[in-house]
Amino acid sequence: MEQERFAQQLRFLLEADKEKNILRQTHLTDMGRQENDAEHAWHMAMMVWLLREYANEPFDVGRAMMMALIHDIVEIDAGDTYAYDESGKATQQEREAKAAERIFGLLPADQRNELRQLFEEFETYATPEARFARAMDNFQPLMLNVSNDGIDWRLHDVAKSQTAKRHANTARGSRAIADYSMQLIEEHTEKGNLRDE
Amino acid sequence: MEQERFAQQLRFLLEADKEKNILRQTHLTDMGRQENDAEHAWHMAMMVWLLREYANEPFDVGRAMMMALIHDIVEIDAGDTYAYDESGKATQQEREAKAAERIFGLLPADQRNELRQLFEEFETYATPEARFARAMDNFQPLMLNVSNDGIDWRLHDVAKSQTAKRHANTARGSRAIADYSMQLIEEHTEKGNLRDE
Repeated sequence: MEQERFAQQLRFLLEADKEKNILRQTHLTDMGRQENDAEHAWHMAMMVWLLREYANEPFDVGRAMMMALIHDIVEIDAGDTYAYDESGKATQQEREAKAAERIFGLLPADQRNELRQLFEEFETYATPEARFARAMDNFQPLMLNVSNDGIDWRLHDVAKSQTAKRHANTARGSRAIADYSMQLIEEHTEKGNLRDE
Repeated sequence: MEQERFAQQLRFLLEADKEKNILRQTHLTDMGRQENDAEHAWHMAMMVWLLREYANEPFDVGRAMMMALIHDIVEIDAGDTYAYDESGKATQQEREAKAAERIFGLLPADQRNELRQLFEEFETYATPEARFARAMDNFQPLMLNVSNDGIDWRLHDVAKSQTAKRHANTARGSRAIADYSMQLIEEHTEKGNLRDE
Protein backbone atom coordinates (compact mmCIF):
# COMPACT_ATOMS: atom_id res chain seq x y z
CA MET A 1 0.00 0.00 0.00
CA GLU A 2 1.35 3.37 -1.05
CA GLN A 3 0.60 5.65 1.93
CA GLU A 4 0.08 8.95 0.07
CA ARG A 5 -2.22 7.30 -2.48
CA PHE A 6 -4.34 5.70 0.24
CA ALA A 7 -4.48 9.01 2.14
CA GLN A 8 -5.85 10.73 -0.99
CA GLN A 9 -8.49 8.03 -1.42
CA LEU A 10 -9.55 8.44 2.21
CA ARG A 11 -9.74 12.22 1.89
CA PHE A 12 -12.14 11.81 -1.02
CA LEU A 13 -14.21 9.22 0.84
CA LEU A 14 -14.51 11.42 3.92
CA GLU A 15 -15.44 14.42 1.77
CA ALA A 16 -18.15 12.29 0.13
CA ASP A 17 -19.66 11.74 3.59
CA LYS A 18 -21.09 15.27 3.35
CA GLU A 19 -23.61 14.11 0.74
CA LYS A 20 -25.55 12.56 3.62
CA ASN A 21 -26.53 16.06 4.70
CA ILE A 22 -27.68 17.43 1.35
CA LEU A 23 -31.47 17.37 1.23
CA ARG A 24 -33.47 16.89 -1.94
CA GLN A 25 -37.07 17.94 -2.59
CA THR A 26 -38.27 14.32 -2.73
CA HIS A 27 -39.92 12.85 0.37
CA LEU A 28 -39.36 9.30 1.56
CA THR A 29 -42.25 6.89 1.12
CA ASP A 30 -45.04 6.90 3.76
CA MET A 31 -44.94 10.73 3.65
CA GLY A 32 -41.56 10.62 5.39
CA ARG A 33 -38.96 13.33 5.73
CA GLN A 34 -36.99 14.71 2.77
CA GLU A 35 -34.46 12.37 1.22
CA ASN A 36 -30.74 13.15 1.10
CA ASP A 37 -28.35 12.70 -1.82
CA ALA A 38 -26.60 9.62 -0.45
CA GLU A 39 -29.91 7.82 0.13
CA HIS A 40 -31.10 8.74 -3.37
CA ALA A 41 -27.88 7.46 -4.93
CA TRP A 42 -28.04 4.23 -2.93
CA HIS A 43 -31.59 3.57 -4.06
CA MET A 44 -30.78 4.44 -7.65
CA ALA A 45 -27.73 2.15 -7.81
CA MET A 46 -29.83 -0.74 -6.53
CA MET A 47 -32.41 0.05 -9.22
CA VAL A 48 -29.71 -0.02 -11.90
CA TRP A 49 -29.08 -3.64 -10.94
CA LEU A 50 -32.66 -4.77 -10.32
CA LEU A 51 -34.25 -3.10 -13.35
CA ARG A 52 -31.41 -3.68 -15.85
CA GLU A 53 -33.61 -5.98 -17.94
CA TYR A 54 -35.59 -2.88 -19.08
CA ALA A 55 -32.58 -1.07 -20.60
CA ASN A 56 -32.71 -0.32 -24.33
CA GLU A 57 -29.16 -1.54 -24.87
CA PRO A 58 -26.65 -3.81 -23.13
CA PHE A 59 -24.49 -1.98 -20.59
CA ASP A 60 -21.86 -2.56 -17.91
CA VAL A 61 -23.87 -2.76 -14.67
CA GLY A 62 -20.96 -2.06 -12.31
CA ARG A 63 -19.98 1.12 -14.19
CA ALA A 64 -23.58 2.34 -14.25
CA MET A 65 -23.93 1.66 -10.51
CA MET A 66 -20.78 3.66 -9.78
CA MET A 67 -22.16 6.50 -11.92
CA ALA A 68 -25.32 6.40 -9.84
CA LEU A 69 -23.35 6.44 -6.58
CA ILE A 70 -21.28 9.52 -7.46
CA HIS A 71 -23.53 11.54 -9.78
CA ASP A 72 -24.61 14.05 -7.10
CA ILE A 73 -21.29 14.47 -5.33
CA VAL A 74 -20.81 17.93 -6.87
CA GLU A 75 -23.79 19.09 -4.80
CA ILE A 76 -21.48 19.15 -1.76
CA ASP A 77 -20.30 22.50 -3.16
CA ALA A 78 -23.04 23.36 -5.65
CA GLY A 79 -26.12 22.42 -3.58
CA ASP A 80 -29.16 20.52 -4.86
CA THR A 81 -30.94 22.11 -7.81
CA TYR A 82 -34.58 21.03 -7.96
CA ALA A 83 -35.53 19.50 -11.32
CA TYR A 84 -38.16 22.20 -11.84
CA ASP A 85 -36.16 25.23 -10.62
CA GLU A 86 -35.47 27.04 -13.91
CA SER A 87 -33.38 29.89 -12.50
CA GLY A 88 -31.25 27.49 -10.45
CA LYS A 89 -30.74 25.34 -13.53
CA ALA A 90 -29.33 28.29 -15.48
CA THR A 91 -26.19 28.40 -13.29
CA GLN A 92 -26.14 24.70 -12.38
CA GLN A 93 -23.60 23.58 -14.96
CA GLU A 94 -21.01 26.17 -14.03
CA ARG A 95 -21.38 25.59 -10.29
CA GLU A 96 -21.15 21.83 -10.73
CA ALA A 97 -18.11 21.96 -13.03
CA LYS A 98 -16.16 23.90 -10.39
CA ALA A 99 -17.25 21.43 -7.73
CA ALA A 100 -16.20 18.44 -9.85
CA GLU A 101 -12.75 20.00 -10.27
CA ARG A 102 -12.27 20.37 -6.52
CA ILE A 103 -13.90 17.18 -5.25
CA PHE A 104 -12.62 14.64 -7.80
CA GLY A 105 -9.29 16.47 -7.50
CA LEU A 106 -8.88 15.00 -4.02
CA LEU A 107 -8.26 11.56 -5.59
CA PRO A 108 -5.03 10.19 -7.09
CA ALA A 109 -4.75 11.26 -10.77
CA ASP A 110 -5.87 7.94 -12.31
CA GLN A 111 -9.01 7.78 -10.18
CA ARG A 112 -9.70 11.49 -10.55
CA ASN A 113 -9.79 10.94 -14.32
CA GLU A 114 -11.85 7.75 -14.02
CA LEU A 115 -14.54 9.43 -11.89
CA ARG A 116 -14.62 12.63 -13.93
CA GLN A 117 -15.13 10.46 -16.99
CA LEU A 118 -18.07 8.67 -15.34
CA PHE A 119 -19.53 11.96 -14.15
CA GLU A 120 -19.29 13.60 -17.58
CA GLU A 121 -20.72 10.60 -19.39
CA PHE A 122 -23.66 10.74 -17.03
CA GLU A 123 -24.18 14.47 -17.56
CA THR A 124 -24.14 14.15 -21.36
CA TYR A 125 -25.94 10.80 -21.80
CA ALA A 126 -22.79 9.74 -23.64
CA THR A 127 -22.88 5.95 -23.10
CA PRO A 128 -25.41 3.15 -22.53
CA GLU A 129 -24.41 3.17 -18.83
CA ALA A 130 -25.14 6.90 -18.60
CA ARG A 131 -28.46 6.62 -20.40
CA PHE A 132 -29.71 3.88 -18.09
CA ALA A 133 -28.34 5.51 -14.93
CA ARG A 134 -30.12 8.76 -15.90
CA ALA A 135 -33.34 6.85 -16.46
CA MET A 136 -33.02 5.62 -12.86
CA ASP A 137 -32.23 9.17 -11.69
CA ASN A 138 -35.63 10.17 -13.09
CA PHE A 139 -37.57 7.11 -12.08
CA GLN A 140 -36.40 6.83 -8.45
CA PRO A 141 -38.00 10.11 -7.26
CA LEU A 142 -41.07 9.45 -9.44
CA MET A 143 -41.54 6.12 -7.68
CA LEU A 144 -41.31 7.73 -4.23
CA ASN A 145 -43.51 10.66 -5.17
CA VAL A 146 -46.21 8.42 -6.62
CA SER A 147 -46.12 6.30 -3.45
CA ASN A 148 -46.93 9.55 -1.62
CA ASP A 149 -49.81 10.46 -3.95
CA GLY A 150 -47.78 13.15 -5.71
CA ILE A 151 -46.94 15.20 -2.60
CA ASP A 152 -43.76 16.65 -4.14
CA TRP A 153 -45.54 17.85 -7.28
CA ARG A 154 -48.30 19.43 -5.21
CA LEU A 155 -45.86 21.21 -2.89
CA HIS A 156 -44.07 22.76 -5.87
CA ASP A 157 -47.11 23.27 -8.12
CA VAL A 158 -45.45 21.32 -10.95
CA ALA A 159 -47.10 21.33 -14.38
CA LYS A 160 -47.68 18.20 -16.40
CA SER A 161 -45.61 19.59 -19.27
CA GLN A 162 -42.58 20.13 -17.01
CA THR A 163 -42.58 16.62 -15.65
CA ALA A 164 -43.39 15.05 -19.01
CA LYS A 165 -40.40 16.84 -20.54
CA ARG A 166 -38.10 15.49 -17.86
CA HIS A 167 -39.37 11.94 -18.07
CA ALA A 168 -39.18 11.90 -21.88
CA ASN A 169 -35.41 11.63 -21.35
CA THR A 170 -35.96 8.38 -19.48
CA ALA A 171 -36.70 6.85 -22.90
CA ARG A 172 -33.08 7.33 -23.92
CA GLY A 173 -32.18 4.64 -21.37
CA SER A 174 -35.39 2.65 -21.10
CA ARG A 175 -38.41 3.01 -23.37
CA ALA A 176 -40.34 0.56 -21.17
CA ILE A 177 -39.82 2.59 -17.99
CA ALA A 178 -40.47 5.86 -19.83
CA ASP A 179 -43.84 4.51 -21.05
CA TYR A 180 -44.72 3.46 -17.52
CA SER A 181 -43.66 6.89 -16.21
CA MET A 182 -45.87 8.65 -18.77
CA GLN A 183 -48.85 6.57 -17.67
CA LEU A 184 -48.25 7.67 -14.08
CA ILE A 185 -48.01 11.29 -15.19
CA GLU A 186 -51.36 10.99 -17.00
CA GLU A 187 -52.98 9.43 -13.93
CA HIS A 188 -51.67 12.09 -11.60
CA THR A 189 -52.73 14.87 -13.93
CA GLU A 190 -56.26 13.48 -13.89
CA LYS A 191 -56.11 13.33 -10.11
CA GLY A 192 -55.05 16.99 -9.99
CA ASN A 193 -51.61 16.28 -8.50
CA LEU A 194 -49.97 17.76 -11.59
CA ARG A 195 -51.16 21.05 -13.02
CA ASP A 196 -52.73 20.67 -16.47
CA GLU A 197 -52.32 23.87 -18.49
CA MET B 1 -42.86 -5.14 -19.77
CA GLU B 2 -44.67 -7.82 -17.77
CA GLN B 3 -46.90 -5.82 -15.38
CA GLU B 4 -46.98 -8.22 -12.43
CA ARG B 5 -43.21 -8.70 -12.54
CA PHE B 6 -42.60 -4.96 -12.57
CA ALA B 7 -45.09 -4.48 -9.72
CA GLN B 8 -43.15 -7.01 -7.61
CA GLN B 9 -39.89 -5.22 -8.33
CA LEU B 10 -41.42 -1.90 -7.29
CA ARG B 11 -42.83 -3.40 -4.08
CA PHE B 12 -39.35 -4.53 -3.13
CA LEU B 13 -37.82 -1.16 -4.03
CA LEU B 14 -40.38 0.73 -1.96
CA GLU B 15 -39.90 -1.62 0.97
CA ALA B 16 -36.14 -1.01 0.73
CA ASP B 17 -36.83 2.71 1.24
CA LYS B 18 -37.33 1.93 4.94
CA GLU B 19 -33.60 1.34 5.34
CA LYS B 20 -33.21 5.12 5.27
CA ASN B 21 -34.76 5.25 8.73
CA ILE B 22 -32.67 2.56 10.43
CA LEU B 23 -30.00 4.21 12.54
CA ARG B 24 -26.61 2.70 13.21
CA GLN B 25 -24.26 3.44 16.10
CA THR B 26 -21.72 5.13 13.82
CA HIS B 27 -21.69 8.93 13.65
CA LEU B 28 -21.12 10.88 10.45
CA THR B 29 -17.81 12.65 10.12
CA ASP B 30 -17.41 16.08 11.78
CA MET B 31 -19.17 14.64 14.86
CA GLY B 32 -22.41 14.54 12.89
CA ARG B 33 -25.64 12.71 13.65
CA GLN B 34 -25.90 8.90 13.57
CA GLU B 35 -25.69 7.29 10.15
CA ASN B 36 -28.50 5.22 8.66
CA ASP B 37 -28.26 1.90 6.84
CA ALA B 38 -28.84 3.30 3.35
CA GLU B 39 -26.09 5.90 3.79
CA HIS B 40 -23.69 3.26 5.12
CA ALA B 41 -24.42 0.95 2.18
CA TRP B 42 -23.97 3.79 -0.31
CA HIS B 43 -20.60 4.70 1.15
CA MET B 44 -19.51 1.08 1.31
CA ALA B 45 -20.45 0.36 -2.34
CA MET B 46 -18.43 3.38 -3.46
CA MET B 47 -15.49 2.07 -1.40
CA VAL B 48 -15.76 -1.34 -3.08
CA TRP B 49 -15.08 0.42 -6.38
CA LEU B 50 -12.48 2.94 -5.24
CA LEU B 51 -10.42 0.61 -3.04
CA ARG B 52 -10.66 -2.52 -5.21
CA GLU B 53 -6.92 -2.45 -5.90
CA TYR B 54 -6.35 -3.55 -2.27
CA ALA B 55 -8.35 -6.80 -2.54
CA ASN B 56 -6.46 -10.04 -1.93
CA GLU B 57 -8.01 -11.70 -4.99
CA PRO B 58 -9.67 -10.63 -8.25
CA PHE B 59 -13.44 -10.17 -7.91
CA ASP B 60 -16.51 -8.96 -9.82
CA VAL B 61 -16.88 -5.33 -8.74
CA GLY B 62 -20.54 -4.96 -9.76
CA ARG B 63 -21.58 -8.04 -7.76
CA ALA B 64 -19.67 -6.89 -4.71
CA MET B 65 -21.26 -3.42 -4.98
CA MET B 66 -24.74 -4.95 -5.11
CA MET B 67 -23.88 -7.06 -2.05
CA ALA B 68 -22.86 -3.88 -0.26
CA LEU B 69 -26.07 -2.12 -1.27
CA ILE B 70 -28.38 -4.85 0.04
CA HIS B 71 -26.45 -6.41 2.93
CA ASP B 72 -28.38 -4.59 5.67
CA ILE B 73 -31.87 -4.81 4.16
CA VAL B 74 -32.88 -7.48 6.69
CA GLU B 75 -32.57 -4.83 9.39
CA ILE B 76 -35.91 -3.42 8.21
CA ASP B 77 -37.44 -6.26 10.24
CA ALA B 78 -34.55 -7.36 12.45
CA GLY B 79 -33.18 -3.93 13.50
CA ASP B 80 -29.52 -2.94 13.66
CA THR B 81 -27.35 -5.09 15.90
CA TYR B 82 -24.28 -3.18 17.08
CA ALA B 83 -21.03 -4.97 16.27
CA TYR B 84 -20.16 -5.14 19.99
CA ASP B 85 -23.60 -6.09 21.36
CA GLU B 86 -22.99 -9.71 22.37
CA SER B 87 -26.54 -10.51 23.55
CA GLY B 88 -28.07 -8.99 20.40
CA LYS B 89 -25.67 -11.00 18.29
CA ALA B 90 -26.89 -14.27 19.84
CA THR B 91 -30.31 -13.94 18.18
CA GLN B 92 -29.19 -11.93 15.16
CA GLN B 93 -28.92 -14.82 12.72
CA GLU B 94 -32.41 -16.14 13.38
CA ARG B 95 -34.03 -12.68 13.21
CA GLU B 96 -32.22 -11.87 10.00
CA ALA B 97 -33.03 -15.18 8.29
CA LYS B 98 -36.76 -14.57 8.83
CA ALA B 99 -36.43 -11.05 7.50
CA ALA B 100 -34.56 -12.24 4.39
CA GLU B 101 -37.38 -14.69 3.69
CA ARG B 102 -40.02 -11.96 3.81
CA ILE B 103 -38.18 -9.06 2.17
CA PHE B 104 -36.44 -10.86 -0.71
CA GLY B 105 -39.71 -12.77 -1.11
CA LEU B 106 -41.31 -9.58 -2.46
CA LEU B 107 -39.27 -9.97 -5.67
CA PRO B 108 -39.97 -12.19 -8.69
CA ALA B 109 -38.55 -15.70 -8.08
CA ASP B 110 -35.39 -15.31 -10.19
CA GLN B 111 -34.39 -12.07 -8.48
CA ARG B 112 -35.39 -13.35 -5.05
CA ASN B 113 -32.93 -16.19 -5.55
CA GLU B 114 -30.25 -13.91 -6.97
CA LEU B 115 -30.40 -11.52 -4.02
CA ARG B 116 -30.63 -14.26 -1.39
CA GLN B 117 -27.54 -15.79 -2.96
CA LEU B 118 -25.67 -12.48 -2.72
CA PHE B 119 -26.86 -11.98 0.86
CA GLU B 120 -25.82 -15.47 1.96
CA GLU B 121 -22.44 -15.26 0.28
CA PHE B 122 -21.86 -12.01 2.14
CA GLU B 123 -22.90 -13.51 5.48
CA THR B 124 -20.61 -16.53 5.08
CA TYR B 125 -17.59 -14.92 3.37
CA ALA B 126 -18.20 -17.49 0.64
CA THR B 127 -16.71 -15.70 -2.40
CA PRO B 128 -14.04 -13.11 -3.24
CA GLU B 129 -16.86 -10.54 -3.68
CA ALA B 130 -18.21 -11.31 -0.20
CA ARG B 131 -14.77 -11.17 1.41
CA PHE B 132 -14.00 -7.76 -0.06
CA ALA B 133 -17.48 -6.36 0.59
CA ARG B 134 -17.19 -7.46 4.23
CA ALA B 135 -13.80 -5.79 4.50
CA MET B 136 -15.53 -2.56 3.41
CA ASP B 137 -18.35 -3.19 5.90
CA ASN B 138 -15.71 -3.14 8.63
CA PHE B 139 -13.55 -0.37 7.26
CA GLN B 140 -16.30 2.17 6.45
CA PRO B 141 -17.39 2.75 10.08
CA LEU B 142 -13.75 2.58 11.24
CA MET B 143 -12.91 5.39 8.83
CA LEU B 144 -15.78 7.56 10.11
CA ASN B 145 -15.08 6.77 13.75
CA VAL B 146 -11.38 7.59 13.42
CA SER B 147 -12.30 10.88 11.71
CA ASN B 148 -14.27 11.63 14.90
CA ASP B 149 -11.38 10.74 17.21
CA GLY B 150 -12.99 7.43 18.21
CA ILE B 151 -16.27 8.87 19.51
CA ASP B 152 -18.23 5.65 18.84
CA TRP B 153 -15.76 3.48 20.73
CA ARG B 154 -15.77 5.90 23.67
CA LEU B 155 -19.57 6.06 23.81
CA HIS B 156 -19.80 2.26 23.97
CA ASP B 157 -16.68 1.63 26.06
CA VAL B 158 -15.31 -0.76 23.44
CA ALA B 159 -12.23 -2.83 24.30
CA LYS B 160 -9.24 -3.12 21.99
CA SER B 161 -9.64 -6.91 21.88
CA GLN B 162 -13.24 -6.63 20.66
CA THR B 163 -12.43 -4.32 17.83
CA ALA B 164 -9.23 -6.15 16.91
CA LYS B 165 -11.20 -9.39 16.64
CA ARG B 166 -13.69 -7.77 14.28
CA HIS B 167 -11.10 -6.13 12.08
CA ALA B 168 -9.03 -9.31 11.84
CA ASN B 169 -11.77 -10.51 9.47
CA THR B 170 -10.99 -7.60 7.17
CA ALA B 171 -7.84 -9.53 6.24
CA ARG B 172 -9.94 -12.19 4.55
CA GLY B 173 -10.80 -9.59 1.89
CA SER B 174 -7.84 -7.21 2.10
CA ARG B 175 -4.66 -7.82 4.07
CA ALA B 176 -3.48 -4.29 3.22
CA ILE B 177 -6.57 -2.62 4.68
CA ALA B 178 -6.56 -4.96 7.67
CA ASP B 179 -2.96 -3.96 8.46
CA TYR B 180 -3.91 -0.31 8.21
CA SER B 181 -6.94 -0.91 10.44
CA MET B 182 -4.77 -2.61 13.07
CA GLN B 183 -2.42 0.38 13.12
CA LEU B 184 -5.38 2.66 13.76
CA ILE B 185 -6.55 0.40 16.57
CA GLU B 186 -3.11 0.54 18.18
CA GLU B 187 -3.04 4.34 17.93
CA HIS B 188 -6.49 4.72 19.42
CA THR B 189 -5.69 2.34 22.24
CA GLU B 190 -2.65 4.46 23.12
CA LYS B 191 -4.86 7.56 23.02
CA GLY B 192 -7.33 5.91 25.41
CA ASN B 193 -10.21 5.80 22.90
CA LEU B 194 -10.24 1.99 23.09
CA ARG B 195 -10.10 0.24 26.44
CA ASP B 196 -6.88 -1.71 26.93
CA GLU B 197 -7.47 -4.67 29.29
